Amino acid sequence: MPIEIPADNVGLVSPQIAQFDEALPLRSGRSLAEYQLVYETYGTLNAGRSNAILICHALSGNHHAAGYLSMEDRKPGWWDACIGPGKAIDTNKYFVVSINNLGGCHGSTGPTSLDPATGRRYGPDFPIMAVRDWVKSQARLADRLGIEQWLAVVGGSLGGMQALRWSIDYPERLRGCAVIAAAPKLSAQNIAFNEVARQAIVSDPDFHEGHYYEHNTKPRRGLMLARMLGHITYLSDGSMREKFGRDLRTGKLNFNFDADFEVESYLRYQGENFSDHFDANTYLLMTKALDYFDPARDFDGDLAACLAQARCRFLVSSFSTDWRFAPERSEEIVKALMRARKAVSYLEIDAPQGHDAFLFPIDEYVRLIGGFLASLTAGGKH
Amino acid sequence: MPIEIPADNVGLVSPQIAQFDEALPLRSGRSLAEYQLVYETYGTLNAGRSNAILICHALSGNHHAAGYLSMEDRKPGWWDACIGPGKAIDTNKYFVVSINNLGGCHGSTGPTSLDPATGRRYGPDFPIMAVRDWVKSQARLADRLGIEQWLAVVGGSLGGMQALRWSIDYPERLRGCAVIAAAPKLSAQNIAFNEVARQAIVSDPDFHEGHYYEHNTKPRRGLMLARMLGHITYLSDGSMREKFGRDLRTGKLNFNFDADFEVESYLRYQGENFSDHFDANTYLLMTKALDYFDPARDFDGDLAACLAQARCRFLVSSFSTDWRFAPERSEEIVKALMRARKAVSYLEIDAPQGHDAFLFPIDEYVRLIGGFLASLTAGGKH
Repeated sequence: MPIEIPADNVGLVSPQIAQFDEALPLRSGRSLAEYQLVYETYGTLNAGRSNAILICHALSGNHHAAGYLSMEDRKPGWWDACIGPGKAIDTNKYFVVSINNLGGCHGSTGPTSLDPATGRRYGPDFPIMAVRDWVKSQARLADRLGIEQWLAVVGGSLGGMQALRWSIDYPERLRGCAVIAAAPKLSAQNIAFNEVARQAIVSDPDFHEGHYYEHNTKPRRGLMLARMLGHITYLSDGSMREKFGRDLRTGKLNFNFDADFEVESYLRYQGENFSDHFDANTYLLMTKALDYFDPARDFDGDLAACLAQARCRFLVSSFSTDWRFAPERSEEIVKALMRARKAVSYLEIDAPQGHDAFLFPIDEYVRLIGGFLASLTAGGKH
Repeated sequence: MPIEIPADNVGLVSPQIAQFDEALPLRSGRSLAEYQLVYETYGTLNAGRSNAILICHALSGNHHAAGYLSMEDRKPGWWDACIGPGKAIDTNKYFVVSINNLGGCHGSTGPTSLDPATGRRYGPDFPIMAVRDWVKSQARLADRLGIEQWLAVVGGSLGGMQALRWSIDYPERLRGCAVIAAAPKLSAQNIAFNEVARQAIVSDPDFHEGHYYEHNTKPRRGLMLARMLGHITYLSDGSMREKFGRDLRTGKLNFNFDADFEVESYLRYQGENFSDHFDANTYLLMTKALDYFDPARDFDGDLAACLAQARCRFLVSSFSTDWRFAPERSEEIVKALMRARKAVSYLEIDAPQGHDAFLFPIDEYVRLIGGFLASLTAGGKH
């Protein structure tokens, strides 16, 4: 039975592909000779090309942020809660561009793509990307689309780091920057969790040092473990307690190693499902980009000096129960922006969902984003 | 070169073994036909047999809590900071008994032991132990040692849960109960972390469904991952930041999947070292005992009703930066004890080390334990 598409949904969407033949020099010193980016757009670019918003995705995200891919598609895009007609990112007003990052596994050039130099899949030889590399590739897509300046660049988590990098590297090319549930750099604990996930993948015998495609297999167990672990860090202690508590699957303890508790079978299911659909080399790359992100590093650790480059207005937002990137981490960004005398609005949203909260249509949060975007169109082009 | 043993150290110690031929019925419905317990003792049992203290170990602990095993032994027992002449648990005053729990891999009967019924190692067929089973086995050791009543039962983390279980199941057999850095039951998040660790082990191809001994191998990668993950939860975010920050191993980012950051190589080292010395089936068992611990379950979830059984005095202690078993979890125990009108002292110790703090000789903490134990001898036998 075909789905019924709600009135506030962007409806059926199709990805588009942009091919780039000019080499992209990368932070690592390597470069991509050619590449393609897959993206979706929602809404209409206005005549002045002044209503475009770029959405940057997080660790396991992709370009499919809103709408449905077919009338049989049961699940809309990952940020459908916030993108659509009348929603926080209102497609009646804005032209929204959502991109799959390089190194991804959903259509943009990445480890699963063929390396033109060898004719084989890149696999583990795909260059490790830095956030600045993604931003550079996104800027080229903006050129291609004729967008000189974004009304805003918006992202949560790793996406927020991309938004922040935009404000530093292309200060004239955005009017607003929304950095949601992010951090100016990962803590040792953040890196440690990423490292366990990576070790789970690379120690899986089916990883074959990243050449698992040639062995017609994939490190399914490693990816499952990585996702289970990641998932714990996306949820708050309280939301897990609320959702699962100590509920038993069969009403009793089994005294074996089957899943006794609901939370165990939930995590196993999430992990297995993810391992079916995601590429391990991409997962490794994305976690490294997170670990490496530290824009202040080029300024002797002085984030305010780094952000002095920026010309846009900022919205920074955090969630009370997020322990992956706790409100204090967002406040580091806010304080640096204030020291750099930038215009910044900050709100810690009271929300039980932990890090995942940024994906939910929480009233206060939706109003915050909507209000910030509206405020950017109130003045003229800066 | 032989070590120099400090004056406040218990010195050279030797484990002792007690063999039990009477079957031990278990919470699971199964039973152990016969078993042995390995233990160490420090100090001297007084004539009245009233100065004995039982130390219960945590997840990866064992009976070797203090002193050195030889003059070449570089590392003292795991709680040497707190056990010794003049230390918090003063071996000039007390007779300390430290036991390796059943299911362990350090000498007490466990998965690596021979099953008398088959003549082969128990492996995965070793029964899953509940905390109450351990306590029962410890009570039998007390009988064997002629200790009718412990001056105190003391433990941190999973050890604290055993101490609490003693107060419920054998109320007349202890005068004091010290529950350190514990919780009355695991949260969904706690269980979730344990489940990821278990899945890391059981999904390792070298696990062979627990029969890895017969294959002359062990699930080394799974154990390594389990330990890396566990280790993150033992440390506080702040202590990891303090210890490692974002320090780079080679002073630069490598843009490959070697360890870039110090915290990565530290965790890998910890994980590999652990996987050399610990048994995977034991690790699985111990995490299940943690997950299953929930003494209030027999009382419709009413912890105060459960603790109404107790006759001893309590010390409950938590650490400010412990997020594995946060101070709030200790406070649940304290509140239930107060509702049950029991004598309880509680202190949240301000300490940066996270959950691991219970292993450190923190002044305030050392004084707290020492003071509690001294107060127990102030009155007569109750």
